[in-house]
Amino acid sequence: GHPVYRDMSTTIFEHMSARARETGAINLGQGFPEGPGPRAMLQAAADALLTRSSQYPPMSGLPELRSAVAGHYARHQQLDLSPQEVIVTSGATEAIAASLLALVRPGDEVLMLAPLYDAYLPLVERAGGVAKVVTLAPPDWRVTRALLEAAITPRTRILLMNNPVNPTGIVLRESELALLADLCVTHDLIALCDEVWEQTVYDGIPHRPLMAFPGMRARTVKIGSAGKIFSVTGWKVGWMCAAPPIATLLARAHQFLTFTTPPNLQWAVAQGLSWPDAWFDRQRAVYQASRDRLAAGLAAAGYVVQPSGATWFLSIDLPASAIALDDMTFCDRIIDEAGVAAIPMSAFCPQSPVTHLVRLCFAKADATLDQAIARLAAFR
Amino acid sequence: GHPVYRDMSTTIFEHMSARARETGAINLGQGFPEGPGPRAMLQAAADALLTRSSQYPPMSGLPELRSAVAGHYARHQQLDLSPQEVIVTSGATEAIAASLLALVRPGDEVLMLAPLYDAYLPLVERAGGVAKVVTLAPPDWRVTRALLEAAITPRTRILLMNNPVNPTGIVLRESELALLADLCVTHDLIALCDEVWEQTVYDGIPHRPLMAFPGMRARTVKIGSAGKIFSVTGWKVGWMCAAPPIATLLARAHQFLTFTTPPNLQWAVAQGLSWPDAWFDRQRAVYQASRDRLAAGLAAAGYVVQPSGATWFLSIDLPASAIALDDMTFCDRIIDEAGVAAIPMSAFCPQSPVTHLVRLCFAKADATLDQAIARLAAFR
Ligand SMILES: CSCCC(=O)C(=O)O
Ligand SMILES: CSCCC(=O)C(=O)O
Repeated sequence: GHPVYRDMSTTIFEHMSARARETGAINLGQGFPEGPGPRAMLQAAADALLTRSSQYPPMSGLPELRSAVAGHYARHQQLDLSPQEVIVTSGATEAIAASLLALVRPGDEVLMLAPLYDAYLPLVERAGGVAKVVTLAPPDWRVTRALLEAAITPRTRILLMNNPVNPTGIVLRESELALLADLCVTHDLIALCDEVWEQTVYDGIPHRPLMAFPGMRARTVKIGSAGKIFSVTGWKVGWMCAAPPIATLLARAHQFLTFTTPPNLQWAVAQGLSWPDAWFDRQRAVYQASRDRLAAGLAAAGYVVQPSGATWFLSIDLPASAIALDDMTFCDRIIDEAGVAAIPMSAFCPQSPVTHLVRLCFAKADATLDQAIARLAAFR
Repeated sequence: GHPVYRDMSTTIFEHMSARARETGAINLGQGFPEGPGPRAMLQAAADALLTRSSQYPPMSGLPELRSAVAGHYARHQQLDLSPQEVIVTSGATEAIAASLLALVRPGDEVLMLAPLYDAYLPLVERAGGVAKVVTLAPPDWRVTRALLEAAITPRTRILLMNNPVNPTGIVLRESELALLADLCVTHDLIALCDEVWEQTVYDGIPHRPLMAFPGMRARTVKIGSAGKIFSVTGWKVGWMCAAPPIATLLARAHQFLTFTTPPNLQWAVAQGLSWPDAWFDRQRAVYQASRDRLAAGLAAAGYVVQPSGATWFLSIDLPASAIALDDMTFCDRIIDEAGVAAIPMSAFCPQSPVTHLVRLCFAKADATLDQAIARLAAFR
């Protein structure tokens, strides 16, 4: 035997950001926005440091933030969560880790859809679960009953999924969500639904929480992220929402992972969640415009861009762009030769890797995007 | 099978703090200081929010903080750590969780000394380890070779310990540390040494890091906490220090637990760690005076107080104080009848519980301590 983590590599995001820091490349790899975050929120967090307690808040979060999360989801997604069903975590990654450590029993099979976020598989395995990865196919990554049913067994206990989907930028269709919900109910699965991109769905399409589908209210853990909603990725404030029997177990795991989250950041996020709808609409419009700018610029430079309906990411198709490199080689070369960092899609595909797509983050200032476009145009 | 966490209860600290919040009792239970924290540090953290990035810092921590931790330990404990050997975590609890998840293989035996911090045992078990708890005996909780050797087997792989010790307030003697180090070397164990109380050792006694003992440099994970050092328990900034082969594994686990820690808090802690020795001496003197105040007041009220050489805690001995209640009953009664919250020692003793001692936190303002003393005097 050897430590479970011995053969695991450093997360692709850290690897690429470290190389971007070393080389001075424009970093369109790891997903983080270029700006400082909303001024009012930064100010609220700074004020709370100077005027409120810096000692342990309650383990499951400040009551004000738990209420604010519930209220936010009531207004934006018509969900009926009570504050007691919200547990604040030190980022969505902690929420995913806590959920898996709370709910996976040794040998339980955990169903996942690939391409998938790189933390999922190692966390499932570290929790003692058996990963069952259903690999979806480009370009539309469609979720089908046949694919899922082929992967479900009597030992399947959890569905761990992401919607909207990082890295593909796909928003699951209503019919796909209904199918996933139906399978969860039929096979008595708990769904861990990572919805950190819920406020970055573009083109006027509303976000549909899995928890709202028939039979899902009591069997879904909904995971959210203030870092993503408010463009402050370093704050590491997230949450997990679930009906009380599950929430109790989640809190047990959380108490021994981080116990709690800095109270000043919790205060500020609580305020932000109650900002008027117009704030969220404007923020979404800004990111949508950035998506369109990067997509148009890359297309004009001869790259074939995949449609992206959500997140901070779009992908380019290398062979369709007449680039005869695999995704890893392309990313290695553009960081050194073009001064642009990106993420190879294969990093999100543990089995049957997709090697012809490269993910780029568009949550950047126009000037940054334009410079990256120029550099990538020159690279061709 | 059932979820590993199903039968686990809520941590005693949260339980008692929640009851204190409900009842308005003076909270001498959960360990947190009454004050707001050092003004200069709060200001530095607030300034960083408004002037520096709120996006992801590097996964293992800001270089400035990793250097500051290494520098602090060089000055205060004559350790020769490089910044690369320091990994910043979201609190010491995350450091303990990450260390265990990184290093424990299923079936590995983990040696622990009781009374022990309440997170240790569930984390060891969740990581797949087999807990081997060596129960020490009051009043001096002496660590002996015979006790340890009786618990070590060929499957023992890790020693998880705490020095200074929460909840007892004991500082391990030089001979005990030498014994523990010798056993680690002889039996090829990795030591996870939770030294979060390193800056709260009183009576002029220096803290002795386990890592400094012969043979321990390459086999010790040293865990520290800015929340404890700077009296800002809600900040959840901690770290784990280890030689590169171990640090690499720790980073693997950390990247999928929280990934990183708020950068503004990291900046502020980096500044604080380089404050002059006088600051740490003064802080220590303040807590020592609080310890003495609570001990003297309780003694004058007829309670028998156990010696405490470190931490923010001291214990009272119930039968020696002619109180015919077990620790749990006493804590239940004083929260309602005296308006004082405390922690029963049995919460720290998973096997052969010690039920005659009650832990009280003295990291409070003089007026708070005096009021608690008066209430506990009236309760007798
Ligand atoms: C935790 S770093 C990764 C951030 C992110 O969500 C991404 O780049 O996909
Ligand atoms: C994480 S809450 C517990 C704080 C503490 O160290 C204690 O009270 O012992």
